[in-house]
Amino acid sequence: MTDNKKPPLPFDELDPPQRLLMGPGPINAHPRVLRAMASPLLGQFDPEFTTYMNETMALYRAVFQTENRWTFLVDGTARSAIEAALVSLLEPGDRIVIGNFGRFGLLLTEIAERCGAEVTTVDAEWGEVLPQDAIEEAVAKIRPRVVALVHGDTSTTMAQPLDRLGEICRKYDALSYVDATATLGGIAVKTDEWGLDIVTSGLQKCMGGPSGSAPITISDRAAERIFARRHIEKGIASPDAQSGNAPFIRSNYFDLAMLMDYWSEKRLNHHTEATSMLYAARECARVVLQEGLDARFARHALASDAMVAGLTAMGLTLFGDAAHKMTNVTGIYIPQGIDGERVRARMRTDFEIEIGSSFGPLHGKIWRIGTMGYNCRKHNVALTLAAHEAVLKGEGFKIAAPGAAVEAALAVYHEKEKA
Amino acid sequence: MTDNKKPPLPFDELDPPQRLLMGPGPINAHPRVLRAMASPLLGQFDPEFTTYMNETMALYRAVFQTENRWTFLVDGTARSAIEAALVSLLEPGDRIVIGNFGRFGLLLTEIAERCGAEVTTVDAEWGEVLPQDAIEEAVAKIRPRVVALVHGDTSTTMAQPLDRLGEICRKYDALSYVDATATLGGIAVKTDEWGLDIVTSGLQKCMGGPSGSAPITISDRAAERIFARRHIEKGIASPDAQSGNAPFIRSNYFDLAMLMDYWSEKRLNHHTEATSMLYAARECARVVLQEGLDARFARHALASDAMVAGLTAMGLTLFGDAAHKMTNVTGIYIPQGIDGERVRARMRTDFEIEIGSSFGPLHGKIWRIGTMGYNCRKHNVALTLAAHEAVLKGEGFKIAAPGAAVEAALAVYHEKEKA
Repeated sequence: MTDNKKPPLPFDELDPPQRLLMGPGPINAHPRVLRAMASPLLGQFDPEFTTYMNETMALYRAVFQTENRWTFLVDGTARSAIEAALVSLLEPGDRIVIGNFGRFGLLLTEIAERCGAEVTTVDAEWGEVLPQDAIEEAVAKIRPRVVALVHGDTSTTMAQPLDRLGEICRKYDALSYVDATATLGGIAVKTDEWGLDIVTSGLQKCMGGPSGSAPITISDRAAERIFARRHIEKGIASPDAQSGNAPFIRSNYFDLAMLMDYWSEKRLNHHTEATSMLYAARECARVVLQEGLDARFARHALASDAMVAGLTAMGLTLFGDAAHKMTNVTGIYIPQGIDGERVRARMRTDFEIEIGSSFGPLHGKIWRIGTMGYNCRKHNVALTLAAHEAVLKGEGFKIAAPGAAVEAALAVYHEKEKA
Repeated sequence: MTDNKKPPLPFDELDPPQRLLMGPGPINAHPRVLRAMASPLLGQFDPEFTTYMNETMALYRAVFQTENRWTFLVDGTARSAIEAALVSLLEPGDRIVIGNFGRFGLLLTEIAERCGAEVTTVDAEWGEVLPQDAIEEAVAKIRPRVVALVHGDTSTTMAQPLDRLGEICRKYDALSYVDATATLGGIAVKTDEWGLDIVTSGLQKCMGGPSGSAPITISDRAAERIFARRHIEKGIASPDAQSGNAPFIRSNYFDLAMLMDYWSEKRLNHHTEATSMLYAARECARVVLQEGLDARFARHALASDAMVAGLTAMGLTLFGDAAHKMTNVTGIYIPQGIDGERVRARMRTDFEIEIGSSFGPLHGKIWRIGTMGYNCRKHNVALTLAAHEAVLKGEGFKIAAPGAAVEAALAVYHEKEKA
């Protein structure tokens, strides 16, 4: 069936609508990041390209607030780095304690189980976070090899406090893993100050890029553990290649020892680095660092305050523990009698604005509105609130005070501008 | 250490050199593919985006020459789809027969071992292919669950005949897996005609795109096997979700049952699709199909003939079994007394042309010159030969007949143009 006839399905050129993505991620990429991806490709061992790799490592050290040598990219979506971290740390039969307060805590349990680990969870209701004392208690009792937590779980909009995690893990000789997919670049991730061993993320939330590249940082003690499981590929083995003594890592693609050898001066061939996504990741970090981390975190906090002020002024009720709400996503209850999906569809079709629905126990109960990365700006907050109010009114919801949502949000911004 | 000081390492804007990548891949992407990646992002469940997903499935059915419903993308480099295929097919203890005639055959053994499979290899020297009878003999003896082969192994420049693989596998009730990373879009991959069960690829070779997205196609019988291992993620479980009875797949990211549920009308959330890489993959397929598969394969065969004619006219010796040489990459021995890496460095620094070195037993023995995808054109063949001759001459190699390389290559093209 090769040819003689014209190709059956060429389809048209790409022409996506100009949609404003105000959900819990992915969000619109910064235009500089999109342009970076259009740069010409280079060979993976080209000196110019390995220089870009090294620069990317240095940039992400600053983004992760760490001195960790092993700071690089996993070639996949955010989830790929979660699996790389867990499968490289966990041997079958190892114990792991997982903090579970939302969908992404469940994902950690799921991945750890597939690694053959014995999983113990410390649980909170969706909409709450975990007391760090409860984590310590479980760690003291279980004495796990790994303690894993999500930093910000967009499924519940909660940000887990992590400042004691490193101390707890050192006290009981465990390694810590943190999934910072939804926080990096928007909420402080203090890798070294908190003593975290592995932290991973993605680009599609506060980093302002597309999904498909996953930054990771690894402490020396975690790297030591991983290198003990090092295994050199047969096709590229050389006499000076050193394998470790511990059981091999169950994945080749996610073997962090191999990835570290590839990202080191050894440049041991593994996969072919995803060139355009590396360009994107590099540009994301440049944008973030040129703004400055503190300025960026403050911008997210301000947008969150404004969004909350607007939504509550409209008469909507905030979901979850306000004290631990992530500053880059806001959950609000869908009012009784309102069809949440119809509202989302009208937001999209009348205003080209996307907001989020929810998973699991919150399915059909809350909307999630993101204020992330490039999109986390005053005009987007105001436009989203105006559209949301118009749609809710059209759907028969009695707005508390018409026009008050936008006014309340802008008042938060204007107060800040005066200060 | 967040702020107060300016970011320590912003580095300059991306500005990669204009390098012509004539190695065994990655190669330069088609400009349309680079531009496609600069398109605005969409949410992963946006109807416009899921339409693009469905179109991408249809386009890759044509590229893979298959009617397989399950034809989609794995979000990672080519290697990610290899692992997804093997980990989803193989349970620990399963037997697998692997054809091994180069580095990527060794990679298949490596990945299968990590899946816990019992591996039997059928081996050929680097530079030869496997008789299909030898494969049948091993399959008859071992009765494996899976038979895995590389189609084109760039490490040796050999293209393995596969026309009997499906028949052999059906006869002995095995499933076939083929790694077509280096051939798809440049050499015919007849998925249905050959009766293959899973075939995977990448974009960075003959598809003319960047590394980072891995097309896969899966037959119904392979899909049935994989769905028997289906497992629904806890965070998104709903009452109508059906899990299979067979042992779970050891990876979450590479669980093809989950990926199929995500790419189906169910749209069960898994990872966040790598939007920009999907745009790239879609555009690669459009470019390929608009040219036409047969025209494209003929273009690669012609470039191979011309490159071989040129290199041998220069006095160089072809590596490997000429009868089974891939048409998109050519291996030639590095002449005695010539430093292969110095030649590559001068090609790069004086001419901005990259050619390939080699791995394992061929390390330091051959160069590999690619004629792939967008770069597989007359002028690139001629320019590469002219540069190669100039550099070899500068390094003291006695050129058989100065100027003959380019002439011989152009003669091959001109003869074809007259025909």
